[in-house]
Amino acid sequence: MRFERPVPITEIASLIGAEIIGNQQGVATGINEIHKVEEGDLVFVDHPKYYDKCINSAATYIIINQKTDFPSHKALLLVEHPFEAYLTIVQQFRPFQPLKKPVSDSASIGENTIVMPGVVLGNHVRIGSNCIIHANVVIMDHCIIGDNVIIQPGTIIGSDAFYYNKKTNRDVHYKKMLSCGRVVIENDVEIGANCTIDRGVSGDTVIGAGTKMDNLVHIGHDTVVGRNCLFAAQVGIAGATIIEDNVILWGQVGVSKTLTIGKGAELYAQSGVPASLEGGKKYFGSPAEDAMQKKKEIVWIKRIPKLWEKVMNKH
Amino acid sequence: MRFERPVPITEIASLIGAEIIGNQQGVATGINEIHKVEEGDLVFVDHPKYYDKCINSAATYIIINQKTDFPSHKALLLVEHPFEAYLTIVQQFRPFQPLKKPVSDSASIGENTIVMPGVVLGNHVRIGSNCIIHANVVIMDHCIIGDNVIIQPGTIIGSDAFYYNKKTNRDVHYKKMLSCGRVVIENDVEIGANCTIDRGVSGDTVIGAGTKMDNLVHIGHDTVVGRNCLFAAQVGIAGATIIEDNVILWGQVGVSKTLTIGKGAELYAQSGVPASLEGGKKYFGSPAEDAMQKKKEIVWIKRIPKLWEKVMNKH
Amino acid sequence: MRFERPVPITEIASLIGAEIIGNQQGVATGINEIHKVEEGDLVFVDHPKYYDKCINSAATYIIINQKTDFPSHKALLLVEHPFEAYLTIVQQFRPFQPLKKPVSDSASIGENTIVMPGVVLGNHVRIGSNCIIHANVVIMDHCIIGDNVIIQPGTIIGSDAFYYNKKTNRDVHYKKMLSCGRVVIENDVEIGANCTIDRGVSGDTVIGAGTKMDNLVHIGHDTVVGRNCLFAAQVGIAGATIIEDNVILWGQVGVSKTLTIGKGAELYAQSGVPASLEGGKKYFGSPAEDAMQKKKEIVWIKRIPKLWEKVMNKH
Repeated sequence: MRFERPVPITEIASLIGAEIIGNQQGVATGINEIHKVEEGDLVFVDHPKYYDKCINSAATYIIINQKTDFPSHKALLLVEHPFEAYLTIVQQFRPFQPLKKPVSDSASIGENTIVMPGVVLGNHVRIGSNCIIHANVVIMDHCIIGDNVIIQPGTIIGSDAFYYNKKTNRDVHYKKMLSCGRVVIENDVEIGANCTIDRGVSGDTVIGAGTKMDNLVHIGHDTVVGRNCLFAAQVGIAGATIIEDNVILWGQVGVSKTLTIGKGAELYAQSGVPASLEGGKKYFGSPAEDAMQKKKEIVWIKRIPKLWEKVMNKH
Repeated sequence: MRFERPVPITEIASLIGAEIIGNQQGVATGINEIHKVEEGDLVFVDHPKYYDKCINSAATYIIINQKTDFPSHKALLLVEHPFEAYLTIVQQFRPFQPLKKPVSDSASIGENTIVMPGVVLGNHVRIGSNCIIHANVVIMDHCIIGDNVIIQPGTIIGSDAFYYNKKTNRDVHYKKMLSCGRVVIENDVEIGANCTIDRGVSGDTVIGAGTKMDNLVHIGHDTVVGRNCLFAAQVGIAGATIIEDNVILWGQVGVSKTLTIGKGAELYAQSGVPASLEGGKKYFGSPAEDAMQKKKEIVWIKRIPKLWEKVMNKH
Repeated sequence: MRFERPVPITEIASLIGAEIIGNQQGVATGINEIHKVEEGDLVFVDHPKYYDKCINSAATYIIINQKTDFPSHKALLLVEHPFEAYLTIVQQFRPFQPLKKPVSDSASIGENTIVMPGVVLGNHVRIGSNCIIHANVVIMDHCIIGDNVIIQPGTIIGSDAFYYNKKTNRDVHYKKMLSCGRVVIENDVEIGANCTIDRGVSGDTVIGAGTKMDNLVHIGHDTVVGRNCLFAAQVGIAGATIIEDNVILWGQVGVSKTLTIGKGAELYAQSGVPASLEGGKKYFGSPAEDAMQKKKEIVWIKRIPKLWEKVMNKH
């Protein structure tokens, strides 16, 4: 998430009750997760295992629960509970603002774009030109829609990330990671009916130009989909995954989180993808394998009885 | 379903054209299916195979199509078509009442709860405090939502049970079992976008406190989900199933009806559950098996060609 | 698609800039795909491989990109880009007409039919009598709903077909085939919550009388479902497929395009159907096979280690 204005680091420190260690003069430009941070960003870390990675990331300001060595141009913000500090910053700089009416006054709608009845457009939503936003679609705060985009009825753009911190004091329960990212839909994308595309936790979920998806498709938070992909109905993609250009996913394919499917890969219906896949190939099965290999395997299985007969009858 | 007032059994008998056999003085407090009934309830049975079970259940009043022995403190209501009698009672005591406007006057909304545009709240809906009910959510008649509940856009709470009686006179067709149960969502639950949670047929569908579910999840009628469960996107659970506390179901898992998944069980993505599973273990596959065992099986299958080579080449 | 009035073939030719070869006097009654055409229809073809099939189909007028022999009672409409000509005709005779309000003035609603808040009814929608259209359902232009139909909340009837022409000039991308067909839902059908049923591309998607479907079901364009079928939650059926009467599909079953499932077939949960299946049988697996055979196969796989032991230990 980018802040709407550069925020003095002293203001952040005061908000979250942090001691600043290092340069007190800087301004922060945003807050992000470790794999998304840029110079000027805040990042938070509460486990010593990740201290080094965070301190040496592009982030300039590290919210941390212990003093540690750090590059001299950076600063630590020392607090007891970095996760809570993150939540406080999100609530301050991107608070949830209930809508008083279906289309927020801060939503902008491009030329020749049609918005059908029942559509709800959140605060700061921006829609390009020549789009059709069909009935009962919901586009939530800060999401961006390009030009020539068609969204079939009932689809939800920008629902919260499904992202919880597991807590095991007393019993196991879950604490919500507030989502402050966006969904960015590029030009010439078409999205089917009753789909759901979650916003990024602190970065963006992106649907690349020219990609088409059928009905009831789910796209998780922070997932980045390339250009000119095809997703058939009921495909589900978990969070923080990368789908490169020209990937085809047929009906009911499921894709796990934080992996990459290479350019031009094609997954047959109902396949399940637990790990990254090379581009330019066809896959099938759950877990997905080379499609030709998988088809042979199905034939091999049918030969077990004959094998059994041969082996067992001999003795 | 509880009646809104205790109903004299004579009033019920007159409504459905039944002969009362036994005590005529009682009052009925509700009507339920056999596995949900309590003292004071009506139950109905039309097949001799289930006569004993119904007569010896907690139910006090048995709608039945044949005279049979019964405990002296109970009563039989003799009719030709018990199923039709059930439908008549539901239509009388919980009739479908069309909404004249999006939020019924009989719906109650707790303190600090935010209801976004496009939300439809049915008759007698009760929502607790500090909830966010996002745009275009529908909560149907009599459903109950606890405190601190977040429901993402487009989700439907309280749709009818998918429950039909198969009829085979002339051709096969289906007769709808009217739903008069509720959905009860406990505190601190979060539900994703475009999910569907069916009401109980005559009992309650329950989502336990602290449970979180992602988008496009389906929960069937009368299913009871425990506390602090996690369901990823596109999970589907059929009717009358029990999911105990801390169960984790990853993306696209399917669970069949009237079974139990034990506490703390974890099901990997795309698994299918046809029968009850013990708690505290990890499962994978369709049908789901011990995950470790299943992974070994996948390796074994790949050894068939080598086995074939060895056996067939010898001869 | 039927035109609203018979259209002189000269008017069509002028609209798409075609040269008419053959009889100039005729009138066209509609435009359809090759497998749907009737006498009086237009059809289009741009690949020599399909010339013969189109010219010898029931269609009377063939939009084509090359002079070819044809029966004397027909006519060719010669254009450079037949696909573009099709799009032009659809845009002219069935243009997308944005709604100014949730229920179009041209929508008709039968006696005793209840339309709940948030419902959007498109232009020329016709709904029969004694129906319940629940909250936030969207029924799009030209769709037809019979009598005694119940549609649970959030369901979308008549979304566009997921049908694109792949273009490979410069890079791979997709050009939308405009949908001008309808969805026709016959009497006594019940549809669950948050389902999606796509309209036909130029023909009709049909749901046969008495069929019942649960929540989150997807039905693709031009698919024809028979009478008294049962589809459990999260079933997905691709385009142009035929499901005969009394077929039962349990939860999360996926069915591919342009195939036939025979009368009375039953598919167990999570099955995947890549090719036509004979009626009257039970199937399981992905790809779906005879259910009994598939169950035996699952047992055979578990015997591989024993087979291995026997064969490998001998040497």
